Amino acid sequence: LDPSEQVHEAREYDPETQKALEEIDSCQNEIDQLNEKASEEILKVEQKYNKLRKPNFENRSKIIQRIPNFWVTAFVNHPQISAILEEEEEECLHYLTKLDVEEFDDIKSGYRIKFFFDENPYFENDVLTKEFHLGSTGDPASHSTDIKWKDGHNLLERFRQRMQQGEKSGGSGRKRPLDLRSFFSWFCDHGDPSADEIAEVIKDDMWPNPLQYFLVPDIEVENGEGDDD
Amino acid sequence: LDPSEQVHEAREYDPETQKALEEIDSCQNEIDQLNEKASEEILKVEQKYNKLRKPNFENRSKIIQRIPNFWVTAFVNHPQISAILEEEEEECLHYLTKLDVEEFDDIKSGYRIKFFFDENPYFENDVLTKEFHLGSTGDPASHSTDIKWKDGHNLLERFRQRMQQGEKSGGSGRKRPLDLRSFFSWFCDHGDPSADEIAEVIKDDMWPNPLQYFLVPDIEVENGEGDDD
Ligand SMILES: [Ca+2]
Ligand SMILES: [Ca+2]
Ligand SMILES: [Mg+2]
Ligand SMILES: [Mg+2]
Repeated sequence: LDPSEQVHEAREYDPETQKALEEIDSCQNEIDQLNEKASEEILKVEQKYNKLRKPNFENRSKIIQRIPNFWVTAFVNHPQISAILEEEEEECLHYLTKLDVEEFDDIKSGYRIKFFFDENPYFENDVLTKEFHLGSTGDPASHSTDIKWKDGHNLLERFRQRMQQGEKSGGSGRKRPLDLRSFFSWFCDHGDPSADEIAEVIKDDMWPNPLQYFLVPDIEVENGEGDDD
Repeated sequence: LDPSEQVHEAREYDPETQKALEEIDSCQNEIDQLNEKASEEILKVEQKYNKLRKPNFENRSKIIQRIPNFWVTAFVNHPQISAILEEEEEECLHYLTKLDVEEFDDIKSGYRIKFFFDENPYFENDVLTKEFHLGSTGDPASHSTDIKWKDGHNLLERFRQRMQQGEKSGGSGRKRPLDLRSFFSWFCDHGDPSADEIAEVIKDDMWPNPLQYFLVPDIEVENGEGDDD
């Protein structure tokens, strides 16, 4: 029962108290209406500024494309994102040319993250999208693009095989701590869409200011081929 | 170093990349300015609705005063607040006639919780206030009214003595789980003002809708003197 129904069904209070409870309830309803109006106005402000920021984000995307390996560098330097990056996946992300994060127009109902790729040895897709539907109607859900892997380059499959073999690190000499996650297993995972930590980090931390992660050098700096340091 | 300074001090990038980084930085500054403007507008909406809600809250307070033991009942029915209520403190809260929660005008910098009491056997004060200063300048801090305890009725002192004796429950037959907190030790505690769980529960859960807690009966309902059930 919500308080409003409870108040009107209650028979256990004396008439004075019963009357006061009904007055509190109607006062509370007025407060609720003001709360709703406040939320609506705040939403409008957020929508307005989302629109105003958009040209800046588009401009930023174009500039970023002039810097080789901008996104893979920012990802490798980010503590939570780098934690899920397999070595081969990092190689693959050298082909990532553009990132886009779009909140749905009503903001509350969800968002999508788009990864734009150059022609690459791994898959046929130009764009990989992971999309989150978090609206109040229905259960939270996420979807992502079917990846059209090229023969012999299915990184998700390879990761799963390595997991089954009980070891994660690839053939190279580099050691990384064992982690049961990988970038593409995150991308394809829809187990808990309302608590997708990696998606939230991309949306709320990487996207608002990627420059800080591009610039902060990892202890092990690498933008190229080898591990010769 | 903030990214902006880092960009302009960097000498390790080729001239093309360096130029692009500076352009991203200035683009990022425009985004930051829009973010600040958005925050200011949202703050204004919140301030406007705080003002609009105020007469409703004042009206609610007056109606609540017509219901005996409204606040102590709501507190006893609230899972987190009741967890810190000692038996004697609950008796004392029968004299609580009015609760007020006020956000400071700029909202972000803090809030105060006021407890208004009738003439009572425990202390001389009419109002006990706990106030939180959480602004961005200076460390978070809280203050509270000095309680002028009446002789032999210092509930905080008694609680501390019981704690030293290693048992919390009072003389009565009622058993409560051992808890190292009490209402007045919470009121006088300023150890971690930015993470005061009880204060936040009062501000964000009890204050917005106390009726729901007044109406939900505890397993062990009691509004009066004895524990004769
Ligand atoms: Ca590499
Ligand atoms: Ca009692
Ligand atoms: Mg971009
Ligand atoms: Mg009140």
